[in-house]
Amino acid sequence: MKTQEDKGKDKRVTPRAEDYSQWYLDVIESAELAEHAPVRGCMTIRPNGYAIWERIQRVLDEEFKNTGVQNAYFPLFIPESFFKKEAEHVKGFAPEIAVVTRAGGKELEEPLAVRPTSETIIGEAFSRWIQSHRDLPVLLNQWVNVVRWEMRTRLFLRTSEFLWQEGHTAHATEEDAEKRTLQMLEIYRKFAEEVMAVPVIAGIKSDSERFAGAIRTYTIEAMMQDGRALQSGTSHNLGQNFGKAFDVTFLDEKGERHFVWQTSWGVSTRLIGGLIMTHSDDKGLVLPPKMASRKVVIIPIFKEDGDEKARVTRSCKEIADALAFLGREAFVDNRDQHTPGAKFHEWEKKGIPVRIEVGPKDVEKGEAVLVRRDTGEKTPVPVLEIKARVEALLEDMQKNLFDRALEFQKAKSHRVDSYEKFKTILETAPGFLYAHWCGKAECEKIVKEETQATIRCIPFEEKEEPGACVKCGVTSKKRVLFAKAY
Amino acid sequence: MKTQEDKGKDKRVTPRAEDYSQWYLDVIESAELAEHAPVRGCMTIRPNGYAIWERIQRVLDEEFKNTGVQNAYFPLFIPESFFKKEAEHVKGFAPEIAVVTRAGGKELEEPLAVRPTSETIIGEAFSRWIQSHRDLPVLLNQWVNVVRWEMRTRLFLRTSEFLWQEGHTAHATEEDAEKRTLQMLEIYRKFAEEVMAVPVIAGIKSDSERFAGAIRTYTIEAMMQDGRALQSGTSHNLGQNFGKAFDVTFLDEKGERHFVWQTSWGVSTRLIGGLIMTHSDDKGLVLPPKMASRKVVIIPIFKEDGDEKARVTRSCKEIADALAFLGREAFVDNRDQHTPGAKFHEWEKKGIPVRIEVGPKDVEKGEAVLVRRDTGEKTPVPVLEIKARVEALLEDMQKNLFDRALEFQKAKSHRVDSYEKFKTILETAPGFLYAHWCGKAECEKIVKEETQATIRCIPFEEKEEPGACVKCGVTSKKRVLFAKAY
Repeated sequence: MKTQEDKGKDKRVTPRAEDYSQWYLDVIESAELAEHAPVRGCMTIRPNGYAIWERIQRVLDEEFKNTGVQNAYFPLFIPESFFKKEAEHVKGFAPEIAVVTRAGGKELEEPLAVRPTSETIIGEAFSRWIQSHRDLPVLLNQWVNVVRWEMRTRLFLRTSEFLWQEGHTAHATEEDAEKRTLQMLEIYRKFAEEVMAVPVIAGIKSDSERFAGAIRTYTIEAMMQDGRALQSGTSHNLGQNFGKAFDVTFLDEKGERHFVWQTSWGVSTRLIGGLIMTHSDDKGLVLPPKMASRKVVIIPIFKEDGDEKARVTRSCKEIADALAFLGREAFVDNRDQHTPGAKFHEWEKKGIPVRIEVGPKDVEKGEAVLVRRDTGEKTPVPVLEIKARVEALLEDMQKNLFDRALEFQKAKSHRVDSYEKFKTILETAPGFLYAHWCGKAECEKIVKEETQATIRCIPFEEKEEPGACVKCGVTSKKRVLFAKAY
Repeated sequence: MKTQEDKGKDKRVTPRAEDYSQWYLDVIESAELAEHAPVRGCMTIRPNGYAIWERIQRVLDEEFKNTGVQNAYFPLFIPESFFKKEAEHVKGFAPEIAVVTRAGGKELEEPLAVRPTSETIIGEAFSRWIQSHRDLPVLLNQWVNVVRWEMRTRLFLRTSEFLWQEGHTAHATEEDAEKRTLQMLEIYRKFAEEVMAVPVIAGIKSDSERFAGAIRTYTIEAMMQDGRALQSGTSHNLGQNFGKAFDVTFLDEKGERHFVWQTSWGVSTRLIGGLIMTHSDDKGLVLPPKMASRKVVIIPIFKEDGDEKARVTRSCKEIADALAFLGREAFVDNRDQHTPGAKFHEWEKKGIPVRIEVGPKDVEKGEAVLVRRDTGEKTPVPVLEIKARVEALLEDMQKNLFDRALEFQKAKSHRVDSYEKFKTILETAPGFLYAHWCGKAECEKIVKEETQATIRCIPFEEKEEPGACVKCGVTSKKRVLFAKAY
């Protein structure tokens, strides 16, 4: 007669050192974030996982709107023929498309693609909505599900269906489109670092890693605890490719007709995977306070049901009242059927930043014990100071998690000039390798075949310096970021 | 060289009296709320329409969470076999299902239904998540897209793909499930009346109108301006039907195993159609202030570009500052390329509750002119009082729209005892008909065939009274609500 939580509790989280992939799955299972769905490659996002997505949505949505972006909704189904209009785009997406062929009991005349991304259907709409320079810019976004049929899936990181936002904008000039592309990347960078506490490297993709149909793709790349990179957000300058494919034109002030310049940009539920793999530990999920929808759990501890319970309960209530500014984010775990120890364990696995323990002795001293999730440190604190102390702790924890992740990223980053050393590092202790590259797709391809490492980006922060391609030795002016990636 | 807005402006909204269906489509088009997608029966929700949906989401989501509901996400694709497990359910939904048969370039072994609703896939999850009475209740909701292949579609009211929320809960007792079913209906009723300003009749559905797989379906029914009913939200007590179909059981405190009792409840983008058809007029969209994401537009009026423009602009800025508490909901329309008249017309069509006109003479007097969208009434107001006056006006307009709609509903509601009169009213001036009904599906069916009217619900507010079925004359204890419906 075990509850779900009891069952989860019994299950040990595999230590990272033992099996990193299993550790990742164990953290997700023990925190009840998500699970594989009955349909191959699809995922059910459980409430604890979805709460993280809601937080991502709330913060980013506000940031988008502050730049004039409006939300809309374009249909899930796209006529297959639409994909054929942009040559690169169809090449990139055709192999992954799921197709509806039957509906309402009949075979459809034209099969319908389930959207893998919406450039095409939005291109068609733009061609009707945009006529004059006065209609520009158009700044849209949608929060939706998309489907890309994947052979090898991994919860959050790669699933056949996932949730994302896709922004789509149209502009009168190339300059405006480029500015918007970079503006949205900067919103992603800031969000990753300041809200998710995930340090990232921002830069531009090489041609072979570019979005199918874009002229330039920008990215932010985060480092996971196994040294691999996770592409965490991309922003594409689509040039006039979709404008030409869908005949999206406008008349300028002189009455001349031009194709629009477009951008698209997105982040997905994959961010949740990156969040888990950046901060969590062998005890389970660790969440930076700004990402936690439940920040503080107050746990009463008592042996007797009578007077002792009453005093402890009263103190818990008092603490909850002091933390009322956190709304639903702070709460007392009053469940009678679980021991305090089981509760500690449960909320630890679930990544709640702060646990407050309230026992009879604490009550006597007018205190409570604050336990922080990132370091496990315990601090007795006077109940009267609880609000200020919790606020300070949440702030400190947010900062500490970012600093810790940045330190880790730096420790695992190397400036490498020899291909031998390059290979050795990737084999023994993978990380971010800053190496010179000649710019040829051929070298990039060989490196990938031989080491599994890809060019994650050409970082904005890399300065020009004379060098030689780590693979072929040809002259290079800049280092790029190589890494094995998810 | 016309902009989208100019084109919309030129198009006249068909008066209701001339062609009600065309009026509805014209309001949607001229307010740029939505349009038909390239895929038959699907809809693109444009930013002005989506902003209404976001408002519905924000308010209801908070209400749900206040009752302990958490959001989650279940997959879009459901194995076809799942539907066959609940006999009534498959009968109800099979004819409308869209099916993915091909994905990733291959034929699928088992075709996948695109979810028309998620009772089945959630039932499967519940069967794994729920083991003990301590796991109950489970209170979940998801905001998602669903697909029901429809032959006759109408923007917002009936589309092959639509957006909705579907709540799904599991309980230990029938009583708890019934309580939850009614609790959620009450949230819908309150939302419809207090936020959307749409008066509704709440009640229980007759057996033939019940959700496929439920034991009881409750509904709120609104009256549109053509006297037809719109089902605006439903809440289902599913009994143990899905529990039995998916083997969802729990052990009670005595160690005995029982099937859970479940509920589901939902509202959809259809609400937007109801909102339009309740309040809008021959000039276009009318939105109650609580539903408007843009509440106040400030329009500068000047003839000369120099000093006059400067003074008017300054006053607009001052007014905008006074309305800063409204955030993005109040703004100055500074576009140079449109005349004030064109702006009045545009924002009127788009349903902004309050327009503030600021001309040179108003500035001289330290005034501005407030124009309310519901009545068209214009009131000069001292700029210094603008905040208080706008607040009062928004409140009054919210109330006025509800009162107006309620008055309309009452005027078109009739207590009818003769079938001849019943038919005459439906033919000449449709409305809500409260009539006695014997309780037999046969009578209900004949009435529908002969008059197109269906039983919308057995209203909670109807008291028992002796009577005779309006169709067959057999003894009846209660009146039910008949109407033609969307």
